[in-house]
Amino acid sequence: MSVVNARAIFGPHETFVPYELERREVGANDVAIDIKYCGICHSDIHHAHNDWGGTQYPLVPGHEIAGVVAAIGAEVSRFGKGDRVGVGCMVDSCRACDNCEAGLEQFCREGDVKTANGTDRQGRPTQGGYSEQIVVDERFVVRIPDALPLQAAAPLLCAGITVYSPLRTLGVGHDSRVALVGFGGLGHIGVQLASAMEARTTVLDLSLDKREDGLRLGAQDFFATVDTDLFKTLADSFDVVISTVPANLDMGAYLGLLDTDGTMVLIGAPDKPLEINAFSLLRNRRRLAGSLIGGMPETQEMLDFCAAHGIGAEIEVISAGQIDEAYERVIAGDVRYRFVLDVSTI
Amino acid sequence: MSVVNARAIFGPHETFVPYELERREVGANDVAIDIKYCGICHSDIHHAHNDWGGTQYPLVPGHEIAGVVAAIGAEVSRFGKGDRVGVGCMVDSCRACDNCEAGLEQFCREGDVKTANGTDRQGRPTQGGYSEQIVVDERFVVRIPDALPLQAAAPLLCAGITVYSPLRTLGVGHDSRVALVGFGGLGHIGVQLASAMEARTTVLDLSLDKREDGLRLGAQDFFATVDTDLFKTLADSFDVVISTVPANLDMGAYLGLLDTDGTMVLIGAPDKPLEINAFSLLRNRRRLAGSLIGGMPETQEMLDFCAAHGIGAEIEVISAGQIDEAYERVIAGDVRYRFVLDVSTI
Repeated sequence: MSVVNARAIFGPHETFVPYELERREVGANDVAIDIKYCGICHSDIHHAHNDWGGTQYPLVPGHEIAGVVAAIGAEVSRFGKGDRVGVGCMVDSCRACDNCEAGLEQFCREGDVKTANGTDRQGRPTQGGYSEQIVVDERFVVRIPDALPLQAAAPLLCAGITVYSPLRTLGVGHDSRVALVGFGGLGHIGVQLASAMEARTTVLDLSLDKREDGLRLGAQDFFATVDTDLFKTLADSFDVVISTVPANLDMGAYLGLLDTDGTMVLIGAPDKPLEINAFSLLRNRRRLAGSLIGGMPETQEMLDFCAAHGIGAEIEVISAGQIDEAYERVIAGDVRYRFVLDVSTI
Repeated sequence: MSVVNARAIFGPHETFVPYELERREVGANDVAIDIKYCGICHSDIHHAHNDWGGTQYPLVPGHEIAGVVAAIGAEVSRFGKGDRVGVGCMVDSCRACDNCEAGLEQFCREGDVKTANGTDRQGRPTQGGYSEQIVVDERFVVRIPDALPLQAAAPLLCAGITVYSPLRTLGVGHDSRVALVGFGGLGHIGVQLASAMEARTTVLDLSLDKREDGLRLGAQDFFATVDTDLFKTLADSFDVVISTVPANLDMGAYLGLLDTDGTMVLIGAPDKPLEINAFSLLRNRRRLAGSLIGGMPETQEMLDFCAAHGIGAEIEVISAGQIDEAYERVIAGDVRYRFVLDVSTI
């Protein structure tokens, strides 16, 4: 067992404070990771503020972890000391069910173990990446290719895989017509991914403020959704629409964008139920799908894909003293496009 | 032009009366069909009663038409006099768009022409199968294999293709786990189709009243949905759930039945919007899809499949004087499982 420095929050809407955290001994299959950077995801904020209930305080958030291997257990085969590695939303699962065997650990029949604000299989609370070190079974560790800077790779471990997985599941490729709804942390990575998959990529955002960035990152078109005529103009014209925004969209309008056999994917969950008129789905044989991060093999595949195509998050690096301010700015939508915590400042 | 006997309704909730209908001259690509039987679909009733607005009176409903070729135009290549043929929900489309070229005429970019209560491409109202004869371009005529009795084949032209198409689109086959919600006109054909595709087939109906029929037609299981524990017991256990009922189901409960990558298909549209909690879709990467009849090639494929597997609708044949009574019984759910009009009684 080792004690490491972290930043924790002790109650909803309190501020982050220095905290000492115990990490378990490095077991036979474990990798101890010196964390270098940790992305700040909007769900960190929901957990920190107990928006979804059930937060275990004190909480050390963080599930977009990039670092370097500090030590390995005797049975570890895939990593060595000094390797550049990452950890995403999960640190364990039952490893035995059909979904785990298929590399879909996020749908483990017994439930996966979340990296932060979760409970491990021994019943202990899990604490995340706003900390100097973490100890994780090697199955839940991925390799960060040399071509990816650690700080730009960190947000890929949640935001990246969350958009990569549905693009792959739906077979997006050359000339696929893809629309990304929302151009924030997830959307700006999604544009790069879809574009690298040779899709014709369109962004639908609330305004045109980020249009230049969208086009630079690979979008062919960037439209503002305040223009309601847009939904008539673009009707029946996409194979895939990915909503990265947890908003109660006008589902009839968005589903109407799909061409025959097209799929709209939700990767965020709005507070209120979505209202869907079945005719929106009957016409064009449309589909509405959900997606939830990705399994471990697909997470590694995503990082390798990003390395091969020079894809990373556009980030603003912050120090440990700026976490509270960063949270406020995320809530205000004032970030281009992801805050990443420099863990050396903890 | 020829005048044929029909049964028409002149306003919402009036009764059906004898009516003389003009059918167009048999054009070069046309097939004139002596109608023998016409299925009575719930949507006939909605049109007759103007439930969805826009009904053109006098209305001759009917889009589940089975008959025999009476005459053909000079250019007709696929049919000859005396052939056993059928007509379903469509009698025309633009025939030139990508969807038409792909055999998905139901999604024609210019809209298909409905067999009844529609408007043809010359602007004339279309009148359906509660009549002695119909004239249809051969593209929209299908062959009824000899193995299928005409009266049992008639409901396949709408009810049959409506359940067949999503089963095929979703690749249902050996050991697929399929649930059919509702065991009526569509459900009782769906069970036969899914079972013939070697799926493990389950019926979820309001009660167990029709359980014996369900098992006889190929279902392995037949459950009553009043048992709310059922949704816990059957959670995560289907690849495909097809809702044949236009009801505002508890979507969380029904989506919860789907295993990883499973799809729930809506083939009916309830009056009110469906309420969907996005988490129901995120978990297991589930999908909700719509489906709308099928294209002409797939309709022929369905009939051939039914002939090969001895599948047909279970029907109650009625005479022209019983249409009003049959409508009342359909609304009351008192039919096992489809009324078919014997057109010789008109």
